[in-house]
Amino acid sequence: MKVTVSRKAHFNAAHRLYRKDWSPQQNDDIFGKCNNPNFHGHNYELIVSVTGEIDIVTGYVIDMKILKEIIKSEVEDAFDHKNLNLDVPDFENLNPTAENIAVVIYNKIKPKLKSVFDLEITLYETPRNFVTYPAK
Amino acid sequence: MKVTVSRKAHFNAAHRLYRKDWSPQQNDDIFGKCNNPNFHGHNYELIVSVTGEIDIVTGYVIDMKILKEIIKSEVEDAFDHKNLNLDVPDFENLNPTAENIAVVIYNKIKPKLKSVFDLEITLYETPRNFVTYPAK
Amino acid sequence: MKVTVSRKAHFNAAHRLYRKDWSPQQNDDIFGKCNNPNFHGHNYELIVSVTGEIDIVTGYVIDMKILKEIIKSEVEDAFDHKNLNLDVPDFENLNPTAENIAVVIYNKIKPKLKSVFDLEITLYETPRNFVTYPAK
Amino acid sequence: MKVTVSRKAHFNAAHRLYRKDWSPQQNDDIFGKCNNPNFHGHNYELIVSVTGEIDIVTGYVIDMKILKEIIKSEVEDAFDHKNLNLDVPDFENLNPTAENIAVVIYNKIKPKLKSVFDLEITLYETPRNFVTYPAK
Amino acid sequence: MKVTVSRKAHFNAAHRLYRKDWSPQQNDDIFGKCNNPNFHGHNYELIVSVTGEIDIVTGYVIDMKILKEIIKSEVEDAFDHKNLNLDVPDFENLNPTAENIAVVIYNKIKPKLKSVFDLEITLYETPRNFVTYPAK
Amino acid sequence: MKVTVSRKAHFNAAHRLYRKDWSPQQNDDIFGKCNNPNFHGHNYELIVSVTGEIDIVTGYVIDMKILKEIIKSEVEDAFDHKNLNLDVPDFENLNPTAENIAVVIYNKIKPKLKSVFDLEITLYETPRNFVTYPAK
Repeated sequence: MKVTVSRKAHFNAAHRLYRKDWSPQQNDDIFGKCNNPNFHGHNYELIVSVTGEIDIVTGYVIDMKILKEIIKSEVEDAFDHKNLNLDVPDFENLNPTAENIAVVIYNKIKPKLKSVFDLEITLYETPRNFVTYPAK
Repeated sequence: MKVTVSRKAHFNAAHRLYRKDWSPQQNDDIFGKCNNPNFHGHNYELIVSVTGEIDIVTGYVIDMKILKEIIKSEVEDAFDHKNLNLDVPDFENLNPTAENIAVVIYNKIKPKLKSVFDLEITLYETPRNFVTYPAK
Repeated sequence: MKVTVSRKAHFNAAHRLYRKDWSPQQNDDIFGKCNNPNFHGHNYELIVSVTGEIDIVTGYVIDMKILKEIIKSEVEDAFDHKNLNLDVPDFENLNPTAENIAVVIYNKIKPKLKSVFDLEITLYETPRNFVTYPAK
Repeated sequence: MKVTVSRKAHFNAAHRLYRKDWSPQQNDDIFGKCNNPNFHGHNYELIVSVTGEIDIVTGYVIDMKILKEIIKSEVEDAFDHKNLNLDVPDFENLNPTAENIAVVIYNKIKPKLKSVFDLEITLYETPRNFVTYPAK
Repeated sequence: MKVTVSRKAHFNAAHRLYRKDWSPQQNDDIFGKCNNPNFHGHNYELIVSVTGEIDIVTGYVIDMKILKEIIKSEVEDAFDHKNLNLDVPDFENLNPTAENIAVVIYNKIKPKLKSVFDLEITLYETPRNFVTYPAK
Repeated sequence: MKVTVSRKAHFNAAHRLYRKDWSPQQNDDIFGKCNNPNFHGHNYELIVSVTGEIDIVTGYVIDMKILKEIIKSEVEDAFDHKNLNLDVPDFENLNPTAENIAVVIYNKIKPKLKSVFDLEITLYETPRNFVTYPAK
């Protein structure tokens, strides 16, 4: 009896979309106002979903307190109130699009979970734009 | 690395659920107050989800500005502030249930996307009723 | 110790904004696409707020079951799944703007409440547009 | 053309997480403040999702009025304003975690649906914690 | 230049509405299913609003970190995962209606704020029912 | 018959809270992680509320299309995808706290409205923190 349990979390951060190896014009053409050299920012809403069997002893798939701690140490402490481009090493050479941020979060949380669990990351960049990794 | 990117949009419209080939009594029996001959209406909330590989150059699956434009031209311009039964040719002979509206939206947006992308449409008819096509 | 108690409710309806005594051009100039002769529609979200003293015997300002019943009989039964222009006598000669709908709802509910209570109506026409009567 | 139709519902209830065969210390270690012997409670938000073919006659997968009635009789009447541990026989010997509640709801609704339909239950225990069964 | 700053918080709790000095029948007549002797429960959503002048040095009315701490120590630590009737002395002889809970929260937070500040408490018992004290 | 009409809007931006005339230590003591020299950011949700008499000819207090345009030109064009500290002259010598941003928005919109209208600005910095100016 596999169940997916999901936990919502939040962080806010500044970022800028651009490629260092492109000209300003190229960056403007592709990334538009997201390429503001002075950065802009978002309240990122995060949903971390873990799939596994219900433990018949506890009735839990995973203790939500443990999942909450993993999200705090791996994501909130690392990203919250940060500039993703300047303060977070994961994005030193990776454009911090919502897609790439979701993959980075997946790769940070996955090793902290028992290998038997499946993991899905949903990340809202704005209330109207969000991404899911792995793809639905 | 496939990711699903989703964009929310909105349109509001009048509609009526009924079959022209049924008697008023038959329509009342099946469609109840949704069969009001003078129409009723909804704020439809739409989620368009596109699945594909992350472009390693841009970090995007699809540029959200492009997806937003497709939704505007294919759905919002066609359905917003319209009477679905009377103003939208797609529903001239198709009952505008949430299910059918979702399929119509899918068929309008799919050809505008690169064929490599998968598409999913979620349509909220009210905050409590919504449909997803293709099925989850 | 006065407290304001609020109850949310919902109805959906078709409507059209126009004046019978104006030309189509005049109506288009002022009401734009809201003037579609075939109607459009909304999910109206309603908040009914009643202000009064806490009854020290029950701890209630007003029993929410009673307030819920008043909203049902005065608003939901009268407006839900209706065409406001064609099916609701209150709007036979009154343009069903959100402002006017809120005033009509106020005038329908107020006489059903003890006169000692104050009443405020908030009506969402869309998730982005809403009105409050009497003014805040 | 399979579509998933979803209906949101609500119930509120008291519960306590613990195992009768464990010592108070063991229950505290695993269930923490959820183990309060005097109970705590939640507003449970429920999404019932039914997947099937669109009926080409009606345009419905399933009549939402029928689905709403099933949810009312099987879930709301049984769980709303109840103490899950003391008032609901399903949890007499089953810990009422969100995971287990979702499975119980699935098992109550599934037999009321035509066997051709697939069913998915999503249950929000709080706005930040929710579960899905069967797993996504 | 007075500004109102608001902070949302959350607690969940069990409660029961009844008067000890009434017969079961009287309690049923007035409080209905809220009178379940085994309790039910809610996710209470709380908005604490503080009104005062902007401090021209900091640009704050009140440091949100301080307000968050006051809400935690006065409300969350006292009410979260508790049975309001059995675990919270404030309700030993006070019916824990939403109205009364809001007044109790007001009386707990007000003395922790500088006397120059005005305070308003909004408490959601369910997503559809909420109260505001002092009255709007 | 005065009614308040409200319109929601959105912008996202980077910012940093600090005083140029304070030492880093002073800024850290008061503004904590909001003082990150590399900036952080938010999705700001804005509610603009205009109070006035209903125009008996149109049924409007103010045409929402006009209000939407004012918000776009005065707020969204000026603040969206910007660094409030570096890109917006209003904050060159004003700490961009939510309180100060709300006052700036008020001062930009007020002169664009007929003087007979009252104006209220509510600004969500995060889903849990928001401010209202003038105070409620």
